[in-house]
Amino acid sequence: MFVAALGLLAQMGWAQLSSAPIKEDFKPSPVNQPGQAYPQVNSEGRVRTQILAPDAKYVQLDIGGVKYDLVKDEHGVWTGESAPQDVGFHYYQLNIDGASVPDPGSLLFFGACRWGSGIEVPAPDQDIFAFKDVPHGHVEEIYFPSKSTNTSRRAFVYTPPGYSKEQSKRYPVLYLQHGYCENEYSWPNQGRANLIMDNLIAEGKAKPFIIVMTYGMTNEITFGGLRNFDIKPFQTVLVDELIPYIDANFRTLANQENRAMAGLSMGGFETKLVTLNRPDVFSYYALFSGGTYNPDEVKDHRNLKLIFLSCGSKERPDGVKSAVADLQKAGVNSVSYISEGTAHEFHTWRRSLYQLAQLLFK
Amino acid sequence: MFVAALGLLAQMGWAQLSSAPIKEDFKPSPVNQPGQAYPQVNSEGRVRTQILAPDAKYVQLDIGGVKYDLVKDEHGVWTGESAPQDVGFHYYQLNIDGASVPDPGSLLFFGACRWGSGIEVPAPDQDIFAFKDVPHGHVEEIYFPSKSTNTSRRAFVYTPPGYSKEQSKRYPVLYLQHGYCENEYSWPNQGRANLIMDNLIAEGKAKPFIIVMTYGMTNEITFGGLRNFDIKPFQTVLVDELIPYIDANFRTLANQENRAMAGLSMGGFETKLVTLNRPDVFSYYALFSGGTYNPDEVKDHRNLKLIFLSCGSKERPDGVKSAVADLQKAGVNSVSYISEGTAHEFHTWRRSLYQLAQLLFK
Repeated sequence: MFVAALGLLAQMGWAQLSSAPIKEDFKPSPVNQPGQAYPQVNSEGRVRTQILAPDAKYVQLDIGGVKYDLVKDEHGVWTGESAPQDVGFHYYQLNIDGASVPDPGSLLFFGACRWGSGIEVPAPDQDIFAFKDVPHGHVEEIYFPSKSTNTSRRAFVYTPPGYSKEQSKRYPVLYLQHGYCENEYSWPNQGRANLIMDNLIAEGKAKPFIIVMTYGMTNEITFGGLRNFDIKPFQTVLVDELIPYIDANFRTLANQENRAMAGLSMGGFETKLVTLNRPDVFSYYALFSGGTYNPDEVKDHRNLKLIFLSCGSKERPDGVKSAVADLQKAGVNSVSYISEGTAHEFHTWRRSLYQLAQLLFK
Repeated sequence: MFVAALGLLAQMGWAQLSSAPIKEDFKPSPVNQPGQAYPQVNSEGRVRTQILAPDAKYVQLDIGGVKYDLVKDEHGVWTGESAPQDVGFHYYQLNIDGASVPDPGSLLFFGACRWGSGIEVPAPDQDIFAFKDVPHGHVEEIYFPSKSTNTSRRAFVYTPPGYSKEQSKRYPVLYLQHGYCENEYSWPNQGRANLIMDNLIAEGKAKPFIIVMTYGMTNEITFGGLRNFDIKPFQTVLVDELIPYIDANFRTLANQENRAMAGLSMGGFETKLVTLNRPDVFSYYALFSGGTYNPDEVKDHRNLKLIFLSCGSKERPDGVKSAVADLQKAGVNSVSYISEGTAHEFHTWRRSLYQLAQLLFK
């Protein structure tokens, strides 16, 4: 109880007031804007940022709703740091005299229903999504016609290295969904899906496949609206409009056994609903921090090859593990993955994709 | 002189203090973040924005260095508007108590060496880049190996509608460069190069071709450094690394007569230098607000098919027109285009691409 309370106090910014010295080995975040020295991160995972605001009364660094006060120097420059953060990617923002704005030092990422700042806390396994001297696939921005929504809709399509050269080869496809209040940019940007795949393929650890990422909030759900979530609008876009477009315009292996669906958080919820409603479309189902299947739900899925369930160790790993145990007991080929030391954030999902990709289409 | 002074006063925000009523027909800018009502633009081209900043002393809207004061209401919400702006796209930012930050209401665009806010003032010809119900090409993000810079470099490649389906057809290529302190995102984002092409192709006004857009500040020039500009680093990346990669990985017509180069502002300067250094590579040269050629410079260019020079009517249109007159007199096939009512901004360059595309590869 005392330890939990201490943890809470640390979260609330108490660590800043304590006498514990902050390790002065801060380095610029790798997702800063060009030429920007701040924000920075140290080896404890603390985020330090800095901004010129000579006439401000207060400036705060806001990471996940926890606010850390910055301090002004004689030149009007405000500087301050957060408590240690989990490894990996976090959304954040600045609060300047009550205005919630992006940090001009950071690149912008779509999350929390807005383009805002992001920070990258070094992770022991960051090599899995590093930009390396290996052959790189392409990420295509496409617009596919959608009669059901009366417009053309955007998707990003990752094609693996060699796709554009080998004009006869055909590839399996993973349909990969973002979470609530994220969008189709989330997986290629903060998710680094393309770099994860480039690296896996270069090492011979994953079979080359196409990844398709589109916007999943087709029914315009609002905060608190998940309870009344209707999957039909998105299912129509995905299964009746996007998949046929992809199969017509890319060199896919256009059949169930070469088609997978995965999603994170709300995208996992969508994956579950779509795969249960349409057991004829996908052969691989994956939920990243996005719920579980029970054996009854998939007992008639004759072409199901794999269920992959994952979450962070700071979420509810026991639920994932016991669901997979139940599925295995019922004879369903299932795998669980727990991301060590991470919560409901993108590092959990990058790692999940890294694990899943090695199991797909084999 | 009096009129000029009045214009200057209007620019400085004097119009706000005058009794001239502001037309209350503001509408949200089409490049706002999802669900954001502000910023807005009215039929006079005034930009109005709004932000919650209850504890701020002052908030200003900063468009092109001209600052307009916002006014606080009893809920801590600041609102205010600019003087009328030219039609088309403008970079802008907010100033909150001395902090220069993006407006959280706007999407983000790379210009002025940073990702910042952008606003779209309705233009009479905005139809040329509207998102329409026509077949859409794809925009591919690629990484090409660059030995000279010891890394892989990013480019965006527009492939026209049908490219992915017609697996034998080959296409001409336009290499299209951004301006100073912009980057490879500028043409596909605020330039809307892909939508301009989609619309032209749908109307049968342009021959389908590929557009390649990469980062042009390879030599890391700094402010004021243009005088010592060395084109060699970028020329090597473009001609010796990017073009061979594109020809190997896309279905191009890989010869001089099917290759064009164009650039805006600094990108025009680069286009001029590269085309003069390497008269064997391109057959079409285009400078958008980026200087001129004189007949002597191109007199030995035997495979030159077209020189296209353009700028805004608020720049130096006479220079462009007289340069083209001289080129024509010398027997060089040349075209000038003046964008009415615009200055050194992206609307001038969108229109220039729209004009140029109709002349290329015919």
